[in-house]
Amino acid sequence: MPQTTATGPAKALVDAHQEPQDLVLWSHWACPFNQRVWIALEERKIPYQYHESNPYDKEPRFLELNPLGLVPTLEIKTPNGSKSLYESDVLVEYVEDLYPASAEHPPVFPVDPYEKSWARLNLQHITKKILPAYFKLIQAQDPAAQSVARGELYTHLRTYTARIKEGGPYFAGEQWTTVDGSLAPFVGRFFLLDERRGFEGKEVGEKWVEYAKSILARESVKKTTSEAKYYTELMEKYFKDEATSQVSIAIRAGKALP
Amino acid sequence: MPQTTATGPAKALVDAHQEPQDLVLWSHWACPFNQRVWIALEERKIPYQYHESNPYDKEPRFLELNPLGLVPTLEIKTPNGSKSLYESDVLVEYVEDLYPASAEHPPVFPVDPYEKSWARLNLQHITKKILPAYFKLIQAQDPAAQSVARGELYTHLRTYTARIKEGGPYFAGEQWTTVDGSLAPFVGRFFLLDERRGFEGKEVGEKWVEYAKSILARESVKKTTSEAKYYTELMEKYFKDEATSQVSIAIRAGKALP
Repeated sequence: MPQTTATGPAKALVDAHQEPQDLVLWSHWACPFNQRVWIALEERKIPYQYHESNPYDKEPRFLELNPLGLVPTLEIKTPNGSKSLYESDVLVEYVEDLYPASAEHPPVFPVDPYEKSWARLNLQHITKKILPAYFKLIQAQDPAAQSVARGELYTHLRTYTARIKEGGPYFAGEQWTTVDGSLAPFVGRFFLLDERRGFEGKEVGEKWVEYAKSILARESVKKTTSEAKYYTELMEKYFKDEATSQVSIAIRAGKALP
Repeated sequence: MPQTTATGPAKALVDAHQEPQDLVLWSHWACPFNQRVWIALEERKIPYQYHESNPYDKEPRFLELNPLGLVPTLEIKTPNGSKSLYESDVLVEYVEDLYPASAEHPPVFPVDPYEKSWARLNLQHITKKILPAYFKLIQAQDPAAQSVARGELYTHLRTYTARIKEGGPYFAGEQWTTVDGSLAPFVGRFFLLDERRGFEGKEVGEKWVEYAKSILARESVKKTTSEAKYYTELMEKYFKDEATSQVSIAIRAGKALP
């Protein structure tokens, strides 16, 4: 049986978010797309309730909220019943729009329109370029195919790294943004690529290695992270290309992320 | 030689936007992704300069602005030189963020955060579901494959239609939004599917037929549309599956839109 609840630092955060709130994050502790939204909620200091959703045994209520049956799903309680939204990038934008930027609720996008759009463009670079290479590398069984995928991942990470603001520590400079928060959940699983797929951060470059350290040291990332051994356990079937998630099926078929 | 400039109503609009402006839309008259941004600029009443970009003979300056070499690209002139942005959905968000919503500059998103996010979710439905089926139907040569693609297109359009606000005339009701503006350029080319692929709007349903009429009658859509015969001519190679655009190559390989 795979681990069905958060462990380590993430467990403490889950336990602290059991009180009913108007926003309910229907989540799976191990899902990196889910962690993107969880990080944004933490960064913005927005009250929310955490609800662990078992992807192997979906509650009927969950399928009502999201007919696609995917985490993350955000339930929004209103006096007239619940509404819902899904897709991690849509949810991060929602979390941003819901509360105006302030010292109490720091934004996760740059405020300047050009910089905000540049952030969105790089979110697309992550989703359209970096992540397909990441999943391909995990699922590739043949060493030649692994080598191709690893090369693609290095290339797309180098393009990204060249765009990190000089001096960092984050993508946009001093300000933490959802560009960092949308990549960090995957970078937090790169240790598995090191162990099993010959991936080496230093091949991307020194600037990348420094940046990766910076984002993984961020409080919101650490707090939403479970114990390493459970990621190792859960991702075993991905590395054997036996996973049946919508993402792994799409990658196996050579298609884009669902 | 394919037609390289806009014709009909779109030509008049191009001619009226030749004066230098801080925003320059690097465009191709026939590109539906490009038309999305053009419609948004018109709806928001934002000053811009139109620059026709020949996709078969790309200017070096264009490749500097967008290394991916894709229209639409938006050039943003500043006292320190030009910046640029691309990807149609990123550009529409930029056009929205650049000027606050006002009577003078009507927004193309709902202002309410939930409704705005719901709009974004449906933009994803268009991009991830409707458009791949649309391009597959165009490129499919075998009648059985055409039938499958046509069925998929009907299904995704029905899902969309069920979400159109009761009473319309637009997706979000009275307010025209970029959900309408992002689908309209493709609906404007559906007459070719009728002629060549047995597509019938009434198979989607009466509500769809009414909606399609409403969005094609919108001034911003009509003004950005060229003469029908030139779409027919230009899309000939798509219907023969001989096109070499990045979109057609991706669809041919069974992949998502680039």
